[in-house]
Amino acid sequence: MNHHDTGDRSRRRIRLGMVGGGEGSFIGAAHRIAARLDDQFELVAGALSSTAERAHASATALHIPRERSYADYAEMARAEAQRPDGIDAVAIVTPNHLHVPVALAFAEQGIHIICDKPLATSLAQARTLAETVRARGLLFLLTHTYAGYPMVRQARDLVAAGELGELRIVQVEYAQDWLGEPAEQQGNKQAEWRADPLRAGPAGALGDIGTHAYHLARYVSGLRVQELSAELSRFVPGRVLDDHVQAMLRFDGGARGMLWASQVASGASNALRLRVYGTRASLHFDQEQPEQLWLAPRGEPARLLRRGLPPQTQTQPGDQRVPAGHPEGYLEAFAQLYRGFAQAWRGHGSADFPGLADGLEGMAFIEAVLRSHQQNAGWVRME
Amino acid sequence: MNHHDTGDRSRRRIRLGMVGGGEGSFIGAAHRIAARLDDQFELVAGALSSTAERAHASATALHIPRERSYADYAEMARAEAQRPDGIDAVAIVTPNHLHVPVALAFAEQGIHIICDKPLATSLAQARTLAETVRARGLLFLLTHTYAGYPMVRQARDLVAAGELGELRIVQVEYAQDWLGEPAEQQGNKQAEWRADPLRAGPAGALGDIGTHAYHLARYVSGLRVQELSAELSRFVPGRVLDDHVQAMLRFDGGARGMLWASQVASGASNALRLRVYGTRASLHFDQEQPEQLWLAPRGEPARLLRRGLPPQTQTQPGDQRVPAGHPEGYLEAFAQLYRGFAQAWRGHGSADFPGLADGLEGMAFIEAVLRSHQQNAGWVRME
Amino acid sequence: MNHHDTGDRSRRRIRLGMVGGGEGSFIGAAHRIAARLDDQFELVAGALSSTAERAHASATALHIPRERSYADYAEMARAEAQRPDGIDAVAIVTPNHLHVPVALAFAEQGIHIICDKPLATSLAQARTLAETVRARGLLFLLTHTYAGYPMVRQARDLVAAGELGELRIVQVEYAQDWLGEPAEQQGNKQAEWRADPLRAGPAGALGDIGTHAYHLARYVSGLRVQELSAELSRFVPGRVLDDHVQAMLRFDGGARGMLWASQVASGASNALRLRVYGTRASLHFDQEQPEQLWLAPRGEPARLLRRGLPPQTQTQPGDQRVPAGHPEGYLEAFAQLYRGFAQAWRGHGSADFPGLADGLEGMAFIEAVLRSHQQNAGWVRME
Amino acid sequence: MNHHDTGDRSRRRIRLGMVGGGEGSFIGAAHRIAARLDDQFELVAGALSSTAERAHASATALHIPRERSYADYAEMARAEAQRPDGIDAVAIVTPNHLHVPVALAFAEQGIHIICDKPLATSLAQARTLAETVRARGLLFLLTHTYAGYPMVRQARDLVAAGELGELRIVQVEYAQDWLGEPAEQQGNKQAEWRADPLRAGPAGALGDIGTHAYHLARYVSGLRVQELSAELSRFVPGRVLDDHVQAMLRFDGGARGMLWASQVASGASNALRLRVYGTRASLHFDQEQPEQLWLAPRGEPARLLRRGLPPQTQTQPGDQRVPAGHPEGYLEAFAQLYRGFAQAWRGHGSADFPGLADGLEGMAFIEAVLRSHQQNAGWVRME
Repeated sequence: MNHHDTGDRSRRRIRLGMVGGGEGSFIGAAHRIAARLDDQFELVAGALSSTAERAHASATALHIPRERSYADYAEMARAEAQRPDGIDAVAIVTPNHLHVPVALAFAEQGIHIICDKPLATSLAQARTLAETVRARGLLFLLTHTYAGYPMVRQARDLVAAGELGELRIVQVEYAQDWLGEPAEQQGNKQAEWRADPLRAGPAGALGDIGTHAYHLARYVSGLRVQELSAELSRFVPGRVLDDHVQAMLRFDGGARGMLWASQVASGASNALRLRVYGTRASLHFDQEQPEQLWLAPRGEPARLLRRGLPPQTQTQPGDQRVPAGHPEGYLEAFAQLYRGFAQAWRGHGSADFPGLADGLEGMAFIEAVLRSHQQNAGWVRME
Repeated sequence: MNHHDTGDRSRRRIRLGMVGGGEGSFIGAAHRIAARLDDQFELVAGALSSTAERAHASATALHIPRERSYADYAEMARAEAQRPDGIDAVAIVTPNHLHVPVALAFAEQGIHIICDKPLATSLAQARTLAETVRARGLLFLLTHTYAGYPMVRQARDLVAAGELGELRIVQVEYAQDWLGEPAEQQGNKQAEWRADPLRAGPAGALGDIGTHAYHLARYVSGLRVQELSAELSRFVPGRVLDDHVQAMLRFDGGARGMLWASQVASGASNALRLRVYGTRASLHFDQEQPEQLWLAPRGEPARLLRRGLPPQTQTQPGDQRVPAGHPEGYLEAFAQLYRGFAQAWRGHGSADFPGLADGLEGMAFIEAVLRSHQQNAGWVRME
Repeated sequence: MNHHDTGDRSRRRIRLGMVGGGEGSFIGAAHRIAARLDDQFELVAGALSSTAERAHASATALHIPRERSYADYAEMARAEAQRPDGIDAVAIVTPNHLHVPVALAFAEQGIHIICDKPLATSLAQARTLAETVRARGLLFLLTHTYAGYPMVRQARDLVAAGELGELRIVQVEYAQDWLGEPAEQQGNKQAEWRADPLRAGPAGALGDIGTHAYHLARYVSGLRVQELSAELSRFVPGRVLDDHVQAMLRFDGGARGMLWASQVASGASNALRLRVYGTRASLHFDQEQPEQLWLAPRGEPARLLRRGLPPQTQTQPGDQRVPAGHPEGYLEAFAQLYRGFAQAWRGHGSADFPGLADGLEGMAFIEAVLRSHQQNAGWVRME
Repeated sequence: MNHHDTGDRSRRRIRLGMVGGGEGSFIGAAHRIAARLDDQFELVAGALSSTAERAHASATALHIPRERSYADYAEMARAEAQRPDGIDAVAIVTPNHLHVPVALAFAEQGIHIICDKPLATSLAQARTLAETVRARGLLFLLTHTYAGYPMVRQARDLVAAGELGELRIVQVEYAQDWLGEPAEQQGNKQAEWRADPLRAGPAGALGDIGTHAYHLARYVSGLRVQELSAELSRFVPGRVLDDHVQAMLRFDGGARGMLWASQVASGASNALRLRVYGTRASLHFDQEQPEQLWLAPRGEPARLLRRGLPPQTQTQPGDQRVPAGHPEGYLEAFAQLYRGFAQAWRGHGSADFPGLADGLEGMAFIEAVLRSHQQNAGWVRME
């Protein structure tokens, strides 16, 4: 029995550590705000950078005590596991190739895990991690942020309740333009590791945003892709990994669909959009307008559903932070995942957040797309 | 020299005949309004139905003199060619399988042709027609209505002027829901012939709206599809022809794209949308908001271009009917095609409207999709 | 009994004359297209300009026979009344100061009248006309175009059916920017007469667009303004008439509201918008998106009603020209008024179009605003 | 010299106390999240309710030590001022009538103040407070949340930079529907105190949301209202205070405008919208779409400005939390005010947040509206 089982889980803040996410990291900052938003976590330790000096500077700025700022994640895992006030959970916000090694290090110490996506750089690697985590009975949150939006959850619930009828078509897309030029050759650190197969793994836009698109479609529709036909492109000269994915999808049960993800789509910021069509109605969600969800039945006027307003569905969180018309956004969606994690940690209700199964399926999706691409977009089955 | 070469072509109304389009025909009425809108045509003859009684009843309602109401299009072609005041042009608004035979009958009499799309039910048939029309030196307007929208033309001009940079991505879709149920088995005449291979040809949604989507993408981008991988679906039980198409596209020059056309997309009325992305900017056009066009450059705010407002491009018609903010729509777009035809007939300027080349390419597209579908969505070259 | 009572009114086209509307007139062209759109009228005579030469040139361009092109409207009224094939109705599209004299000339000959708004340049003058027209039993269409939009009619029907509950608030606005500079001093003919009190009457933006805003609010809400408090402004140096109106409204029954009309609102094209709020729901109509109407009930998702789709209300025209999703616009709305006029002329159904009562009320509105303005925006009763 | 002047202001978290905001308070929770979001504050003390038991329960839930949970704000002010680790600032989130007494209690102890709006229940009372705060040299943040939106600040900067030209028109409105029924008689605590003159002061919707609308217009346009003509309404039977305000505005320099605020506008959630028109361009901001701002120049396409994208203006915060396309919302806007307060407290840069001057002007606005209403909407000067 380790320290995690002591203390009053129903009241106290969850002690959080972080690996990666030092100064200049967008996603590290987002995790920290998400953790803080509902005041259920306190950040008390970190290995914020692999460079000791940068790690400590970042830790100081974040009010992390010097003795709990580590330059090495393995040391951190060991040390924190020894402390009576050691961390309950670790947030992993490194480049992709470190997700699994870092997660394993903490999992082996019985520390719960919050990890960025994609889960790994290969499906095999992901499976290894999954076994360890499951064997240890640990909580695992994979931060598919967009699953945290209340309207995405409402969409999922509407589909599950049969409001759309039988599903026929799923269209999902994720368009950005920030890699429309060779940013990775121009000093953009966010671009550098994403463009480097050693750190990002074998998938570029596919892993970075394609997995989000896949997850969103999967999460809302509940449908599994049976087969896909996909093609990757590299539009920017000198780029090693893909910056554009297009795919046709065949779902279990006969539904059809398409997925498009691009980081060279001029004029697009973060345009993640999902449309699901059933025999009775369709849904349309646009991440850049996350407070709303279109429900368009055949033969009736389309309805603009909005957060905080009826009809509420089962998983629209009852305790909203601000009322309808006071826009919530990306950070609140992110915080929704942390809130779910906290509830599970406290033993309240079921864990309604993306986890290992989503991560494994995301890796299976990546590998299926890579295989299809190598076969000139021939159909491949998703495992 | 026939009667068409006499008279004052710069002033008088063009004498128009119509084949098909009797009572209850949506598209026949649309053609007539389009012809009337700018007062450059007068409808003087018709073979409005293959049933004599219905033909004459419709003719009477349309103020067509009894003696110029025909029950047989071949007879009409011959008779009108003999009259000193015979028709200058014929509008063909029959089911698809009659487009070519009717067009040939009038072409052989030297009568100019306005024809609905798709041009034919096979590429071979279309080529026969094209040869005849070209040999006769006749005008031929294929009513790809959406090419008549001022903002579509402005989009085309912006691409041609290089405002988007080098094109990388073309996304086009056309979604409707009116065939989401087996309307063809429920007495809907519009659905009946479209669902019948004998009248519609081998393509369902593909021919009916897929060709519009293809044309719009082609017209604006100027890019030719080199190869495509496509899959047809029939979602409605008992349906013979496709009601859903999805395709991946490889364009000349390396651009990529996707095309989606569906008549079972619940909640969609007539949602034809095109997005074109280049290295510098993207364009977004939505047929249901035809007065506007988004131009979204990288690194600058998106701009909402609107009909009648600067920047005007070369082919935004100078003589707009109503000023900016007074919405024009589908019928005006349709009329734009008739206006272009009239200008060409009068010998004013070049013929800026879709014609035989577009029709042939549309048939090539249909045949390529059908072939790819038969090969499990394998890549096929467009001829 | 004059010639208008002979012939088959159920079938033949209505013979239309026009006063004003020569070359370069936007509104004349709009009337002609509207008349032509549904093929129920033929333009056969005109006094298109007060300059004979311009009148005849315009007539020729419009296929009006030379002998029915007049340089003088009074002569036209007399001559047409004498002809066995004389006009059934006249469309008056002159500057405002001529509306009443021209209308009287034709009314006295028993010719039905279609007239642009505002009805007159004073309420007293308008009343004189109304008496004559009513005494003669003539049809009178006042072209408040926006009342021709199907979604405006649906809005009216929804209010009348009690869908909004008891009305509490009416907000109406009409913003343009084309007079943001002294266009009347820069050769813009449309601006010249509108800026000239001798031709426009005592109201500038108030008469030109304020009356449209007032009418739209009145038409949809069914409420009468009891009292108003209004202020006019002239923002452009050298301008004689108002280019900006703001008013607070007190309606019968206690509802409140505001009206704003401006022709100096930079960036606005033709932004006429109406919002009506009742105890149960609100409606929102925007003329620049005329195919849709928002219905927002309290405690339920807002619904986007669209032309051609359910729920249809009583006066949504059954015989739509084009189906939902094929945008209709301003000219179709205009044609809707002509269609209503034609139906009344043929004796079919009731006259569902704006007429003398609307014109009188519009003049009363103008006079009330002018009076209030002179009293430093004190409250005045509308007569 | 009190404790506030000791310690390292550049690094440590600001110690925050709160008065009001116990369980169930929307605005208290919003303040706490706002304070927490950027991790510059820690909540260490509170008088969260005037009922001791409720105060302590709320404090416990918020991790406030029992000894720093007070049932009386005056005691809290005294006690905290004595502690070496006493609060640096207090957030006042009580009903309106307590704003001034509470603020005075803390001001007299030299504690900085963050206070909800409206500042007071009378202008005279507000002036007393202002004198004390100024005499003490304290920081004062009045939480006009909407001034925290980056796009509102960009709007302000664009106006100040002359991008709109000379301002002519300001249209502002704030519509809600949650008081469309007598919620204050149905157990809604938020409604109860707002409907009670003893706690809310003499203004209902006027004070609650009208002041926000006024502030937004003032903040962005930079224009002062010189005179106004206003009318209050009470639409819901049994209500004591106004639930609807309409006003016409005359600004310094000749601009005109209207203000509308309503809490009975069925279908509206929190629809705060501002439009500002100048000789060259207009701006349009909608609080429910806070990531965007329309800039519509005359004679050019309208541009959709978005947070995080060019053109950046001076006060668009350089250190954005999340990139463009990752929606920020109400809580981030709120946090922006707290961030500004923190920067001022640390002595970094100027205090870019609403303060006493805004509060005094808001009270002057309320009193002017009340006076005008009593004079049948006669024009009154704003002091």
